Amino acid sequence: MTSLAQTCAAIVLPCPVAAAQAQARLDCKTKPRGSLGHLEELACQLAAIYRTPRPEPPAKAVVVMAADHGVAEEGVSAYPQEVTGQMLRNFAAGGAAINVLAGLQQARVIVVDMGSKEGVRDQGSGVRDHRLGPGTANVRRGSAMSRETAIRAVEIGIALARELHEAGVGVLAVGEMGIANTTAASAIAAVLLDQPAERVTGRGTGADDERLLRKIQTIQDALSINRPNPADPLDVLAKVGGFEIGGLVGVTIGAAACKMAVVLDGFITGASALIAAALCPTVRDYLIAAHRSPEPGHALILRHLGLRPLLDLEMRLGEGTGAVLALSLLEASLRLLRDMATFAAAGVTDAGA
Amino acid sequence: MTSLAQTCAAIVLPCPVAAAQAQARLDCKTKPRGSLGHLEELACQLAAIYRTPRPEPPAKAVVVMAADHGVAEEGVSAYPQEVTGQMLRNFAAGGAAINVLAGLQQARVIVVDMGSKEGVRDQGSGVRDHRLGPGTANVRRGSAMSRETAIRAVEIGIALARELHEAGVGVLAVGEMGIANTTAASAIAAVLLDQPAERVTGRGTGADDERLLRKIQTIQDALSINRPNPADPLDVLAKVGGFEIGGLVGVTIGAAACKMAVVLDGFITGASALIAAALCPTVRDYLIAAHRSPEPGHALILRHLGLRPLLDLEMRLGEGTGAVLALSLLEASLRLLRDMATFAAAGVTDAGA
Repeated sequence: MTSLAQTCAAIVLPCPVAAAQAQARLDCKTKPRGSLGHLEELACQLAAIYRTPRPEPPAKAVVVMAADHGVAEEGVSAYPQEVTGQMLRNFAAGGAAINVLAGLQQARVIVVDMGSKEGVRDQGSGVRDHRLGPGTANVRRGSAMSRETAIRAVEIGIALARELHEAGVGVLAVGEMGIANTTAASAIAAVLLDQPAERVTGRGTGADDERLLRKIQTIQDALSINRPNPADPLDVLAKVGGFEIGGLVGVTIGAAACKMAVVLDGFITGASALIAAALCPTVRDYLIAAHRSPEPGHALILRHLGLRPLLDLEMRLGEGTGAVLALSLLEASLRLLRDMATFAAAGVTDAGA
Repeated sequence: MTSLAQTCAAIVLPCPVAAAQAQARLDCKTKPRGSLGHLEELACQLAAIYRTPRPEPPAKAVVVMAADHGVAEEGVSAYPQEVTGQMLRNFAAGGAAINVLAGLQQARVIVVDMGSKEGVRDQGSGVRDHRLGPGTANVRRGSAMSRETAIRAVEIGIALARELHEAGVGVLAVGEMGIANTTAASAIAAVLLDQPAERVTGRGTGADDERLLRKIQTIQDALSINRPNPADPLDVLAKVGGFEIGGLVGVTIGAAACKMAVVLDGFITGASALIAAALCPTVRDYLIAAHRSPEPGHALILRHLGLRPLLDLEMRLGEGTGAVLALSLLEASLRLLRDMATFAAAGVTDAGA
């Protein structure tokens, strides 16, 4: 397994020349300059990542990582913890929203159990078993996991990104599932964005007012008990993160090292991207923000990472659903770059020339 | 040809029972209630339009109508008038942005010449010839067209919508092309929204400051010379509209009469929807706003029509590009409604039950 440090060292800046060449190509296409708006920026970013002015639309995959969180016992989520394992089976059976949306995009779905409470016992289920335990420890009583386990989680993600790259995948959407994992994401955001818990904590998948207050208090307690070091992203991950969040940090870093674009989903994948970017700032240039979730911390994360979301549909499901929905925009941007006629070829007068 | 009045009379309210049943179905799916955000509202609107709680994803088409505008001689556009005919040929040859995006969505592209200056002489081009003249008259000197021609334009659109419905199409995206047609759209918006010209006039496909001022002055002159009657939408269309705008009014009304959803593109299709909704308010329930264009009048039109755009990507190309991009979201919403597993079937605990 390639180490985290080696992988971070392998990440290079995307190619600005390819981006400029892609923009020049777009400017020759039969349309007013810039009139495809953010689709043009997206095509140029992808050209830079793939280091060619005319990338072919890449093969797509979505990695959905799931795990349980000991903090669920504090009553921070409206759903019981057993739902994590149930949803893992639902992903494997193809019945979840992410399966439906991935089917529409011809994206592979890779489901990883990073540490659900019960595990998916059926070996033929298609769920990859990388369980690091039956969920993290309750962060209100101590560290979520050891530093060694945090590194292990990240390295599992790195290995998976490399494997998918070798299998021909060119763009990775990331998604997650884990009862109480918005609590972990809020704690990470509070530390790495230096914000009070109440500014980065929302209702997750449906907390009422009372539960929201309990959630904020739980995060405040977790931060004062664990004192995660904001200058040490692995310390933050170990003390208040989650197994699936660690895995997604690794997927993100591993994808960037393999020169793949990473399409973020909502708040939790945003928190994993925060950690990834803190470990290796160049990762940011490989990130695409699919959508803005209603979680209050998400907009702050996106601003910190310098990302503009493509969609704003009030989606708050996770699983990678927003990310996979945005894959259609990526493909559109690259097809426009590749397939549109130029002014010269089509015999159209170019006012901008 | 079915008359405009008969067609308006045939438009019924979408079915609220089907919408409620679709929402109830969505609430049984393995996700927190409402967590798919606006995709859920979209699925319910489509269920209401198609009058069934579980509509199949419909066959798609985009109607691109093009025409020239006499007002182009006032220098309101950065592009020369010949570009309208050139782009018609580009659409027919498959080289324009709309062709690329429609290909990705498996949407038929129907290109209609409603009155370009030169016409597309090649009969085998695939462009439908419904030319009502070599462009409208210059609205700064008089009416764009006669009232009879305006009705003719609308009825051409109605007939086309009916034809596509009979051919099995279930959702119509609408698009347009016509040098100087943002000037016509701004004039329509000024009248029907009761706004001063400067509030609903933008740079179109790239006017500089000087040209923008000239455009605003031209619209003010056109309105004071023609005095379109805001209570008579056909008078507005005839006096300051365009052939392609009239055709799209007809497509919109005809589609609603055939119980098809209509996906609007940007500012010009928004102006045609304004006229359509003024002729028959029930049309509004069949409309879906694909995106928000940077044209300042567009947000005002959408607010007036009670529509929330699905995308906000700073696109300002027209042709139906934004509308066709949004078709992927429509399809996603209906596939989620149809294909996701229920809590009961997947054995997942429902906290909302």
